[in-house]
Amino acid sequence: MSLLTVGTVAFDAIETPFGKTDKIIGGAATYASLAASYFTKNLGLVSVVGDDFPDESIKMLNNHGIDTEGLEIRQGEKSFFWSGRYHNDMNTRDTLATELNVLETFNPVVPEKFKACDFLMLGNLSPEIQMAAMGQIPERPKLVVLDTMNFWMDIALEDLKKAIAKVDVLTINDMEARQLSGEYSLVKAAQKILDMGLKYLIIKKGEHGALLFDNKSVFFAPALPLEDVFDPTGAGDSFAGGFIGYLAKTQDISFDNMKRAIIFGSAMASFCVEKFGMERLIGLSQDEVDERVQDFIDLVQFDISLV
Amino acid sequence: MSLLTVGTVAFDAIETPFGKTDKIIGGAATYASLAASYFTKNLGLVSVVGDDFPDESIKMLNNHGIDTEGLEIRQGEKSFFWSGRYHNDMNTRDTLATELNVLETFNPVVPEKFKACDFLMLGNLSPEIQMAAMGQIPERPKLVVLDTMNFWMDIALEDLKKAIAKVDVLTINDMEARQLSGEYSLVKAAQKILDMGLKYLIIKKGEHGALLFDNKSVFFAPALPLEDVFDPTGAGDSFAGGFIGYLAKTQDISFDNMKRAIIFGSAMASFCVEKFGMERLIGLSQDEVDERVQDFIDLVQFDISLV
Repeated sequence: MSLLTVGTVAFDAIETPFGKTDKIIGGAATYASLAASYFTKNLGLVSVVGDDFPDESIKMLNNHGIDTEGLEIRQGEKSFFWSGRYHNDMNTRDTLATELNVLETFNPVVPEKFKACDFLMLGNLSPEIQMAAMGQIPERPKLVVLDTMNFWMDIALEDLKKAIAKVDVLTINDMEARQLSGEYSLVKAAQKILDMGLKYLIIKKGEHGALLFDNKSVFFAPALPLEDVFDPTGAGDSFAGGFIGYLAKTQDISFDNMKRAIIFGSAMASFCVEKFGMERLIGLSQDEVDERVQDFIDLVQFDISLV
Repeated sequence: MSLLTVGTVAFDAIETPFGKTDKIIGGAATYASLAASYFTKNLGLVSVVGDDFPDESIKMLNNHGIDTEGLEIRQGEKSFFWSGRYHNDMNTRDTLATELNVLETFNPVVPEKFKACDFLMLGNLSPEIQMAAMGQIPERPKLVVLDTMNFWMDIALEDLKKAIAKVDVLTINDMEARQLSGEYSLVKAAQKILDMGLKYLIIKKGEHGALLFDNKSVFFAPALPLEDVFDPTGAGDSFAGGFIGYLAKTQDISFDNMKRAIIFGSAMASFCVEKFGMERLIGLSQDEVDERVQDFIDLVQFDISLV
């Protein structure tokens, strides 16, 4: 297994200034796996849904090369459901409903054939569940990426810190980096968070791009300026999926290659926000991905030779 | 004359979470000229101050190669004074005092020897005054950059639009771009604003960098992530000064060279915010400027070859 993703598979109902959806499929692991599928086809997913989750959505994932043997389907139960409304700036949102359903008792089971995985993506879940999944992988993967959110900093900070100490890369947003470190400056925040036991830290700034830090260097990738951001749901997960998918494809975890992976991740996030839910992430062509990456190259590259 | 800057020379009193200053020298033209002085030494300044403005500050400008023959000193009057307090996020501020003083009746007079100028920077002033200055230049400069702010959009929109139609580059911030265009998306806003008669538009996003648009292309430069932003006053003017100073040095107004100029402008802005007022912008060495530009190269450059 090249890349194993553990995380939520869910229903979302979304309102934005551009419209609203009924229940559509969502979930961190769904977005991340789909985004990663454009880089590697040897993909596994560990998650849980109820019997209300549509077969055709599972088939869609399989068609993208995502092995769903680790997707537990609980009969007589309902899938995790989240509903939210975005404000006009598209950077802030209100949660209208969170129904945990099957997630309340989720106990991830990594199938035998997934256990030898090179790359492991731990999507946003309780740190306890994330560590329970990681604990089932007998040989340390080449790279483990952990995503989390302010909620777990509020209610499970000690567990979260233990999890952070065990993984290689943490992905959080700027507000969360400030909360976790107690520092307003992101440069100072990054240093403190890296000291918690990480090799790399990614700070996501939404429409303002993303920063990659290690102990020596910092790299910045912008978000692509788009005519319309239609629905930001899943952008961060698509970013993480594109990032780790590219690393899994290239099997190179040098800082220079991480920079490339950040750009590919940013490209996947830019597709994600162009339509509701994961509509735009389904069935992209290689040409579309390449053209989008070229847009990023054109956006930021310049040549200055200092003598 | 390589570069002529028209704008305010003033006193500021600044409070930030890091401390507060007494009256120190400020003003858009002061910051812009100082920043530009690291790229070209053939610089002129047109502005007005009262007899309270210190001789040593004028000498400091002269030492940076800035010709102050166009700096009118009004006896018995006081210099323009602005006082403000920055909030903890350093992106928002309250104005505590604005005393126009000499600025109230400012009528710019461009000295004869400044009139043949290649590059013209019109710092933030009423559009009427900006046009009065530009009207004194008999031969159209290679490039005219106009800076403005929301205040003039509120009270002198028609004059501002006329001024915009006469210049080449407009520099405004993201909120001002939205106000001027009525579009939330900066991509759509840029298109509408370019259609007002500009060749290039620069949208400044403070700590989130800057965007350069022409009708075909967009370029993005981040702000440098800094351990501490000490005082943001003058950052936008230092950016504009570094930008036009680099263009004046290289005499090349192609889009590719504008990209480089944006990076040099961002470098000057990053110095500006590291200390109160213009302290950090005085007496920089060429090595310091080059090292800072190298930081920008390291921050954003990556190599992806799409086949």
